[in-house]
Amino acid sequence: MASKYVYFFGGDKTEGDASMKMSLGGKGANLAEMAKIGIPVPPGFTITCQACSEYRMLGTFPEGVMDEVREKTRMIEEVTGRAFGGIEKPLLLSVRSGAPISMPGMMDTVLNLGLSSKTVEAMMDGGRDGRFVYDSYRRLIQMFGNVVMGIAHDAFESILLQLRREVGAERDIDLTAEHLEELIRRYREKYREKIGEEFPEDPAFQLEQTIRAVFDSWDNQRAVTYRKLNNIPDDLCTAVNVQMMVFGNMAERSGTGVAFTRHPATGEDVFYGEYLMNAQGEDVVAGIRTPQPLNDINRIHDDQQTLEELMPEVYKELEQIRLKLDRHFADMQDLEFTIEEGKLYILQTRSGKRTALAAVKIALDYLDKGMIDEKTALSRIETTFIDQLLHPRIDPATSYSVAAVGLPAAPGAAVGQAVLDAETAERWASGGKKVILVRNETTPEDIGGMNAAQGILTALGGMTSHAALVARGMGKPCIVGCSAIHINLDSRTVKIGEARIKEGDFLTLAVGEKGEVVLGELPLVEAGFDESFIRLLGIADRHRRLRVRANAETVKDTKQAREFGAEGIGLCRTEHMFFEGDRIVAFRRMILAPTERQRRTALDQLLPLQQADFEGIFEVMDGLPVTIRLLDPPLHEFLPHLREEMGEVSQVLGVTVEDLKEKVESLRELNPMLGHRGCRLCITFPEICEMQTRAIIGAAINVKRRGIDVRPEIMVPLVGHVNEFVHLERVIREVADEMMKSSGVELEYLLGTMIEVPRAALTAGEIAARAEFFSFGTNDLTQMGFGFSRDDIGSFLPDYLRKEILPVDPFQELDRDGIGKLVEMACRLGREARPDLKLGICGEHGGDPSSIEFCHRVGLDYVSCSPFRVPIARLAAAQAAIKEQEEK
Amino acid sequence: MASKYVYFFGGDKTEGDASMKMSLGGKGANLAEMAKIGIPVPPGFTITCQACSEYRMLGTFPEGVMDEVREKTRMIEEVTGRAFGGIEKPLLLSVRSGAPISMPGMMDTVLNLGLSSKTVEAMMDGGRDGRFVYDSYRRLIQMFGNVVMGIAHDAFESILLQLRREVGAERDIDLTAEHLEELIRRYREKYREKIGEEFPEDPAFQLEQTIRAVFDSWDNQRAVTYRKLNNIPDDLCTAVNVQMMVFGNMAERSGTGVAFTRHPATGEDVFYGEYLMNAQGEDVVAGIRTPQPLNDINRIHDDQQTLEELMPEVYKELEQIRLKLDRHFADMQDLEFTIEEGKLYILQTRSGKRTALAAVKIALDYLDKGMIDEKTALSRIETTFIDQLLHPRIDPATSYSVAAVGLPAAPGAAVGQAVLDAETAERWASGGKKVILVRNETTPEDIGGMNAAQGILTALGGMTSHAALVARGMGKPCIVGCSAIHINLDSRTVKIGEARIKEGDFLTLAVGEKGEVVLGELPLVEAGFDESFIRLLGIADRHRRLRVRANAETVKDTKQAREFGAEGIGLCRTEHMFFEGDRIVAFRRMILAPTERQRRTALDQLLPLQQADFEGIFEVMDGLPVTIRLLDPPLHEFLPHLREEMGEVSQVLGVTVEDLKEKVESLRELNPMLGHRGCRLCITFPEICEMQTRAIIGAAINVKRRGIDVRPEIMVPLVGHVNEFVHLERVIREVADEMMKSSGVELEYLLGTMIEVPRAALTAGEIAARAEFFSFGTNDLTQMGFGFSRDDIGSFLPDYLRKEILPVDPFQELDRDGIGKLVEMACRLGREARPDLKLGICGEHGGDPSSIEFCHRVGLDYVSCSPFRVPIARLAAAQAAIKEQEEK
Repeated sequence: MASKYVYFFGGDKTEGDASMKMSLGGKGANLAEMAKIGIPVPPGFTITCQACSEYRMLGTFPEGVMDEVREKTRMIEEVTGRAFGGIEKPLLLSVRSGAPISMPGMMDTVLNLGLSSKTVEAMMDGGRDGRFVYDSYRRLIQMFGNVVMGIAHDAFESILLQLRREVGAERDIDLTAEHLEELIRRYREKYREKIGEEFPEDPAFQLEQTIRAVFDSWDNQRAVTYRKLNNIPDDLCTAVNVQMMVFGNMAERSGTGVAFTRHPATGEDVFYGEYLMNAQGEDVVAGIRTPQPLNDINRIHDDQQTLEELMPEVYKELEQIRLKLDRHFADMQDLEFTIEEGKLYILQTRSGKRTALAAVKIALDYLDKGMIDEKTALSRIETTFIDQLLHPRIDPATSYSVAAVGLPAAPGAAVGQAVLDAETAERWASGGKKVILVRNETTPEDIGGMNAAQGILTALGGMTSHAALVARGMGKPCIVGCSAIHINLDSRTVKIGEARIKEGDFLTLAVGEKGEVVLGELPLVEAGFDESFIRLLGIADRHRRLRVRANAETVKDTKQAREFGAEGIGLCRTEHMFFEGDRIVAFRRMILAPTERQRRTALDQLLPLQQADFEGIFEVMDGLPVTIRLLDPPLHEFLPHLREEMGEVSQVLGVTVEDLKEKVESLRELNPMLGHRGCRLCITFPEICEMQTRAIIGAAINVKRRGIDVRPEIMVPLVGHVNEFVHLERVIREVADEMMKSSGVELEYLLGTMIEVPRAALTAGEIAARAEFFSFGTNDLTQMGFGFSRDDIGSFLPDYLRKEILPVDPFQELDRDGIGKLVEMACRLGREARPDLKLGICGEHGGDPSSIEFCHRVGLDYVSCSPFRVPIARLAAAQAAIKEQEEK
Repeated sequence: MASKYVYFFGGDKTEGDASMKMSLGGKGANLAEMAKIGIPVPPGFTITCQACSEYRMLGTFPEGVMDEVREKTRMIEEVTGRAFGGIEKPLLLSVRSGAPISMPGMMDTVLNLGLSSKTVEAMMDGGRDGRFVYDSYRRLIQMFGNVVMGIAHDAFESILLQLRREVGAERDIDLTAEHLEELIRRYREKYREKIGEEFPEDPAFQLEQTIRAVFDSWDNQRAVTYRKLNNIPDDLCTAVNVQMMVFGNMAERSGTGVAFTRHPATGEDVFYGEYLMNAQGEDVVAGIRTPQPLNDINRIHDDQQTLEELMPEVYKELEQIRLKLDRHFADMQDLEFTIEEGKLYILQTRSGKRTALAAVKIALDYLDKGMIDEKTALSRIETTFIDQLLHPRIDPATSYSVAAVGLPAAPGAAVGQAVLDAETAERWASGGKKVILVRNETTPEDIGGMNAAQGILTALGGMTSHAALVARGMGKPCIVGCSAIHINLDSRTVKIGEARIKEGDFLTLAVGEKGEVVLGELPLVEAGFDESFIRLLGIADRHRRLRVRANAETVKDTKQAREFGAEGIGLCRTEHMFFEGDRIVAFRRMILAPTERQRRTALDQLLPLQQADFEGIFEVMDGLPVTIRLLDPPLHEFLPHLREEMGEVSQVLGVTVEDLKEKVESLRELNPMLGHRGCRLCITFPEICEMQTRAIIGAAINVKRRGIDVRPEIMVPLVGHVNEFVHLERVIREVADEMMKSSGVELEYLLGTMIEVPRAALTAGEIAARAEFFSFGTNDLTQMGFGFSRDDIGSFLPDYLRKEILPVDPFQELDRDGIGKLVEMACRLGREARPDLKLGICGEHGGDPSSIEFCHRVGLDYVSCSPFRVPIARLAAAQAAIKEQEEK
């Protein structure tokens, strides 16, 4: 049996439904579903992703596809009573991409197919408004020329601008039918000049070429980049939706709009949308004209006219459809509609992009209504949303004057240097600068720059413009439609209200409710939780198996971590404690001591300070485990390296500059990452290990006497050979035993090790025979496993990502195939040797959702991450558990 | 059944035999064997290693041991008709250690047990010479006091010296019976003073305490060090041999000696040995008196009297015994004999230490006589011998004057600074100096210093002295018994013949046949092969499965390698070729080029030079594979780093010093080992890869046209992810295909990769799907697997070895448990993906015998090492194969 490549939709002849997303794409499946449940959808058909996939492999259409296209085109003709390429009642078609995963604006679209000089004349004869017909035709020439034939967009735009200048038309809409006739002449001339052929008159040819172009657009550069940024597989492919054109720009009672079935920023169950009269849908999305609110919900100024006021019956029908769609899909929908001479059509519905706040509110609302279960609710909260909820705000204590306001398109606050194009944004950001991207509007070409920026500010566009949608997805603060800014690309300056700034000057975006733009840098503070967020994380906690701990070494961070729901400290880096105040002096004295005795004297000074630190942390973490890592970094990190500094330090320490320099020199290493650090230090200087053990056990004894439930875990770093652990185990146990004996306080404590050296993973069985827990240090494991110095990777990693040698930075997302194999091996060997071995991760991957999923699957007991990533980890752990169950 | 701990030997009551080495130790098993075949052995018994092992664990004698000792002592009494502790015919016993693996002089010995004031008196009454009896007794007190009770050797020695001074005796032998009686009085007083008790009179107590002390001596520091140096397991333990004393110092017709059943330096089938009249065996071995030759074989001066001349019948009996032992054991024996009043006793026989030259000659001789098979012959050649055969000699073109001569105890030649004690030798050597250890005699305490020295020179001792035995074992050039040197430890000077040198002055040892000491530094040349050596390696080749290749990048080294039997080049490091002459200028120009075009121009200059290099190597390796590695080190290694140098280089290159400095700075890396190097360079700069491919393929095409059978293998370094390989594979194959096409020459070449990054080993299956061979770069694999920077390991590795955290430097001997696991995994995964995958190793472990054994077991196809280690690798590969077969 030959494959079926094309599915019809429209009333009761509809062939597909919402379950067929992988085949029909998100848009096509939802069009079919809408048609099925009686929503007024312009009839059309969807060419499947499989067809695109085979097309990509074959380099040409698979056999039969175009036959099916012709057959389904005839079905549209039947249903509508129009003829494609016909003279009387011509059927015009749109061709749009639609992948299984939404990639807004990344691929190509062509409208008004079926128009030709003949049909245009016929339509005019049939009484259609000349302006409308000519405008449709010039749009076809422009889109087909650009998308299908590759003529630069600017080639047509400059003709349009030139004509407007010639006839004194301020806006496109001011052009008369005659002007447009002239425009078409010039467009066709340009087309002939560029292509060497006349603009094609045959609608079947137009259609076939356009379908081909949309298939090809799957592999255009911006789509490829978008997929890489969003981890969308390249072989998914796009479907193509061919649909009867309906026109929002046909006449006075025509228009187009975009709406959400709920408020996309707050999640409230209200109808939220924008429309433009006498416009095509693209006009709204592209943000070229600023649209009007559908209703009072998002009316900002009194002079705005809502659709509810303008066309109450249409609005009422739309409102009913919004409810039907919202309840039917049980998720907030983002829908596109067109009103053609008073008749409403729904062109698209899809799950709508939303703010983190809205996502949480909406999910909980459906859950409370019994429309979805907890697992579905959790799955709908992207982990990046949490980051977004924890985004910085302007310090409330700050007063500032607002230079301009716009629409609050994506929440948060951002500070950075203004940059006026995406490329500059990327370049400056890669040089370590924080930038705010300031544009008239954004286009898909700007994705890279938006990603690189702290925030985005546009002069044009609405809440559903490209800038707004993409920024919300990225979790970047964004203000759109800020008409008070005027960008001058020649002088690289921006007029903001009354002020004028240069590119490179600082701006602050305070999105809030009002979308405020402020000159200069304002202080930011981290965001907190709201109640629904806390409730959601509570639900997540019921579904996860992985425990979540935090990395912290101060009482402040420990408190923060516990507030965020951390179930212990997974990594307390003791060396951080040595940098404060006088401690660094004692620590340096220890390093410079020529004898063990003098080292011990210096360490004795540090002991009470470090012990007090541990007591503070133990108190906050009452009842929860605290893993303390022994000294890890190489000693030279504690010494000054600059000449000026040395003089000062040598005075404080009472040594000569020469002695100090000599010591610094003697500690210098060619590859410090692989040098004298971690447990290697404690083996050379067991007195350091003794002091730290004394501080930990002493602190634990003290707080236990005060009634605290203390659960210390002592962690030996950088073990590569079991003998290293055994050697230090003896030192630690002896000190601990003696202290417990002399104090009369019995403590339970664990003694374990980091697994961060590949050899430790390979010999994990031997190590687990002695160690009571493993904590994977995946930063170092990645460094050594890949042979990548994290400090030096900048010279080739960008090239590696660009050339697709690596799919992703392995320091951001754990490499499952290689480094993950070491982790798996260590877990297996470790548990074989000690079934109750406690397993955790404390590298930065512990806060990365994909890595957390891996940790879940490999059977770790906990992940540990920075306090601010604890909520993300809680959700990611729940999602990992849910995903695993679903796969079973 | 209770364990049997004690085995009797002596005539037909003998219980053990030579096969029981693991239980009775080497000495005990051979004593039993000798007794069985009718060799005159003083009767005695052996306490097993198992007894020692249990003693170590229990901390006391295992039950029944001392009962067995008493029973076997009674058997000696029966056989000899003497009584232990008896007044009439007292039986005196010796107690000696004897481990399964020989550890000469490392453990303790006590002689003359059974003497007491009562037996001494009785013996005197029985007509024994008073001098002899008193001397025996004072030796017992001294040895028992030192070995069993821990009184410092010097405490007794200083009493002896003092007495000699008082009575004007130049040598010990000049002391009269009366003097010795006084000496005993003072010794006993010293004993009482140190121990607080009288010297024990009870022989049973003496025996038990001595056995305990000998067991304990297994764990003394020098024995532990020796075992570590020689990879002898700690849990092997020692047996204890208790034997009737016979006396070489009893009277005029008494003496003692050490002999080899063949010439230990040349391997000739002659009787070779030394003796001392009126002396105990210890006097010969300790090198305190210079012994006389047994026969004309090693007579050097006419005034020496041979045993053959002095006691022809005894010599004849000894000569018969030597033949019997040599043929019975089918290996050269090192035997100890004592003549007691004209009666010959053999005290010990064991496989004798020999020079490399002798080892080869002897093994081939037994093989030719049909007494051993090829496998046995090969097993008897230690791989270190080959190193020794390849030891340097004095450049034959050099003329020099000899300052002094001594005995040529161990072959070779050495140059270094004179040092006068072992500790200085170790210290200076660890500081990078080459030293010659100059001593009156060496003792087991000197082992470390001997190991650290280039060569050893002693004033005293013979060819079988401690210094001679140990140096031969170590393969260190050594001259002993050089009476023309006088060491002054106070002024730290040495008089050598007429000259006087200071510690730190240079000396040359030219051992040769004459044992020449030369002042200053002479030029050395590498040694070559002799025919029997070539024959032996030919035999080895028949028994090995592993191929042996060499690492080389010059025509000279390639020729050398082929001469040594290399079967290909396993690693040609192309970067070495960039350092020569003008090439470095072009290479630096390439690095500094701001554009790809300028880089290509600079590379074009290098292309013909590199191609010519490859042609030279291909020609020498006609018919054999040559593996060429693409550029590996980071670029900054090619740039100057010192200020002075920069000025010069910037002028040559025509760039400013600032630009040069900036480039050097921009290439600086925190951890260059994990930085921008290996294939990462070629991915960033594909033009380098293209040029190198062009040079390799171009060279191959040229030599093939000249009729050479060329087998190039292109190797991509530092691959960690299959995509890196795939990316460069495309570049390389394209260049190669195009060159073959345009030249019309079809080449077979392989394209493979190093496995030196842990991740590559972990994902070897994916990589092998594309790579045609793997070559393990175990240096980097060890660095990354352990997280040890080879350049920085000096700060903690010595500590790690001392504290026994690591058994051995993992860069010298491949770590089988950890790094070896990665190698095994890569082999398994690789062969699963590509059954005909070629596997090799090109790290420095490729020349280390233990690592070669691992490579054999893990199924590699070849090892590759430096040309001078190729012969070692050939033998080690054969031994690995033989060992494996034996285990099956």
